[in-house]
Amino acid sequence: MIEATSTTSGNLIAADKVNGTNVYNMAGDKLGTVDDIMIDKISGRAIYAVMSFGGFLGMGAKHNPLPWATLKYDAQKSGYVVNMDKKQLQDSPSYDMNSEFKWTPEYGRKVDSYYKTTSYWN
Amino acid sequence: MIEATSTTSGNLIAADKVNGTNVYNMAGDKLGTVDDIMIDKISGRAIYAVMSFGGFLGMGAKHNPLPWATLKYDAQKSGYVVNMDKKQLQDSPSYDMNSEFKWTPEYGRKVDSYYKTTSYWN
Repeated sequence: MIEATSTTSGNLIAADKVNGTNVYNMAGDKLGTVDDIMIDKISGRAIYAVMSFGGFLGMGAKHNPLPWATLKYDAQKSGYVVNMDKKQLQDSPSYDMNSEFKWTPEYGRKVDSYYKTTSYWN
Repeated sequence: MIEATSTTSGNLIAADKVNGTNVYNMAGDKLGTVDDIMIDKISGRAIYAVMSFGGFLGMGAKHNPLPWATLKYDAQKSGYVVNMDKKQLQDSPSYDMNSEFKWTPEYGRKVDSYYKTTSYWN
């Protein structure tokens, strides 16, 4: 696929360019990176940021979906900041990035409940 | 990059999977496909769908950014429907997909103005 846009402007960015953005905790420690954004294809709203923070471990690497509302963009860091520590993320819902994953409303509710955010799923 | 999510649920979809979705006019004619989604990285809102409708012509193929508000998702078609004809799209702001493109607020305003949508840019 040919790149649609090679240069962005301000806060506007091609959705797939968000992949790779760093995620930090409040203390400024790098927790991981955004691997993917899950959107609602009707409203165009980002619902989850799928991140990985254990990729450097090799096998057993996980994807951790975080509700979009838990992320704040920090322009100075050029990354997202989440108000949680590594332990909280390690205990959070995740799935193996090397196996087929079937996203379900049940899984989504589990994620929303863990982070105590308004649920995307009714 | 390893695929974060291979299966979606309902309207939830990985942002980069929207690429390739068909776009139709009200008469049901296929106008083209979505090549990319431009989002606001802070709010997580989709602002533009970057589409191409002349790709089959080969050289001189264009990207046409459409304000997200002009797209309606049609579940039966599994695609987006826009209320405009080919002529309107052919005259619309576009850029060569084979050369470097620098997105600017001015360009964004031109797009928003052409489609008479509320501008993302102040």
